[in-house]
Amino acid sequence: MRGEKVLEIISSKNNQLVKLYRKLAENKKERMQSGLFVAEGMRIIQDALSENIDIHSLMVTEQNVEKYSALLSQADLRGVKPIIISNELGNRISDTENTQGIFAICHIPFQTDLNSAIRKNGKYIILYQLQNPGNVGTIIRTADAMGIDGVILSESCDVFSPKTIRSTMGSVFRLNMWHSLDIENVLQTFKENNIKTYPAVVSENAVSLTECDFSNGGAVIIGNEGNGIPEKIVSQCDIPLTIKMNGNIDSMNAGMAAGIIMWEMTALRN
Amino acid sequence: MRGEKVLEIISSKNNQLVKLYRKLAENKKERMQSGLFVAEGMRIIQDALSENIDIHSLMVTEQNVEKYSALLSQADLRGVKPIIISNELGNRISDTENTQGIFAICHIPFQTDLNSAIRKNGKYIILYQLQNPGNVGTIIRTADAMGIDGVILSESCDVFSPKTIRSTMGSVFRLNMWHSLDIENVLQTFKENNIKTYPAVVSENAVSLTECDFSNGGAVIIGNEGNGIPEKIVSQCDIPLTIKMNGNIDSMNAGMAAGIIMWEMTALRN
Repeated sequence: MRGEKVLEIISSKNNQLVKLYRKLAENKKERMQSGLFVAEGMRIIQDALSENIDIHSLMVTEQNVEKYSALLSQADLRGVKPIIISNELGNRISDTENTQGIFAICHIPFQTDLNSAIRKNGKYIILYQLQNPGNVGTIIRTADAMGIDGVILSESCDVFSPKTIRSTMGSVFRLNMWHSLDIENVLQTFKENNIKTYPAVVSENAVSLTECDFSNGGAVIIGNEGNGIPEKIVSQCDIPLTIKMNGNIDSMNAGMAAGIIMWEMTALRN
Repeated sequence: MRGEKVLEIISSKNNQLVKLYRKLAENKKERMQSGLFVAEGMRIIQDALSENIDIHSLMVTEQNVEKYSALLSQADLRGVKPIIISNELGNRISDTENTQGIFAICHIPFQTDLNSAIRKNGKYIILYQLQNPGNVGTIIRTADAMGIDGVILSESCDVFSPKTIRSTMGSVFRLNMWHSLDIENVLQTFKENNIKTYPAVVSENAVSLTECDFSNGGAVIIGNEGNGIPEKIVSQCDIPLTIKMNGNIDSMNAGMAAGIIMWEMTALRN
């Protein structure tokens, strides 16, 4: 009959888009080669839309089409038509126990040249060899809260893995971020921009965090959870800093240390 | 033959001790009624021994008896004889994917009276209705790192659940802690001890964290991850405090907020 739309519901796991989604969710190499990543859930996809992340495609389960109608209209205005999938397929591709039934494939934002992006007196965090996605997610969220000018990742876990994306709660879309950069190039770039580099270390000889003056900006390097920052890298930096504490220093994790350092870098003191 | 010891290896899941272990791992009520909790893994059991936590019993899998011989000797000196269990049973009772094969049942430390324990000018954290075990674990670790005088839990998740015990990395044994206390009694106790109470809130009208003077001590209340602290409780406290930030304030989680507050309470500034 004329005017009647036939709504196709995809239920095959061999559908090309479904296969692409699963590959991107599971495989970092696939994400790097295609420049795409996946996002699951209402809130994170809403954030992606609000922050003008380029959406490649959108899938919603049959039973949730009505529930997400506002978000789907918003996507429609951006030229993104949702693909309807069966509830069973939604459960199959979901990364969570109770899926919200909405999935997006997004383009990894274009990465500008770090050198031309560095702000005068800017405040930056460099994550070097950080391996725990939860730590990286928390640091990115906190950097967003503190108003840090940018986060640079080098040899760290992939910020576009589903787990990290989820744990950043949308901050990953708001923040200036650079990933997969070479640490020596990064340090050199900050030097050329007259921004001092501060490796965070556990050492009696390092400068206490509370004595660091960040009024002309700074770039703090946070190292691996277990091993810290290699001496070779520390020696190429300007001012090793340390967090002096009253208690059992072993009990501070990398995420919390980074949070406290960012707080000191940006705190609005009288 | 005389002098020959027969080493009994327990392999039945119906063994009384094994059944007790499983009940304690799974059930908060069981822990509260018996005053016992479980700890799994070498590092956490080593910490329990070092901090003089009273060990009720110790189980080790057949294949790991030799590996943990130093720890087992240390336990022996405290009068604790290990029970050997089959590897299969170890995998069954384990809370982790790759078990280390060592399990303890411990006594929950005796809780002293808060009123008589409060130190003059002491610094305390009160967790009210915190529900995420990971957050509670991180806060307890950080409190240990900062040298906080004590952590009080009220209507929060159980600090003696296997997940929280593991995430505190032994800090739970070192720190002064009170759990399951009534919030109104706690606030009253601090008032009687001339220690000001500071509910952490998100509000323009609250005092900025950097303007709070903790030199005479203080007790900061951290509320529920989603809902914060009920107005009824805030109104019974002395000075609502807030963390003023530059960025997107929604992106700070309860654990990080608590860490930054403890840092400001205890920071060794020049």
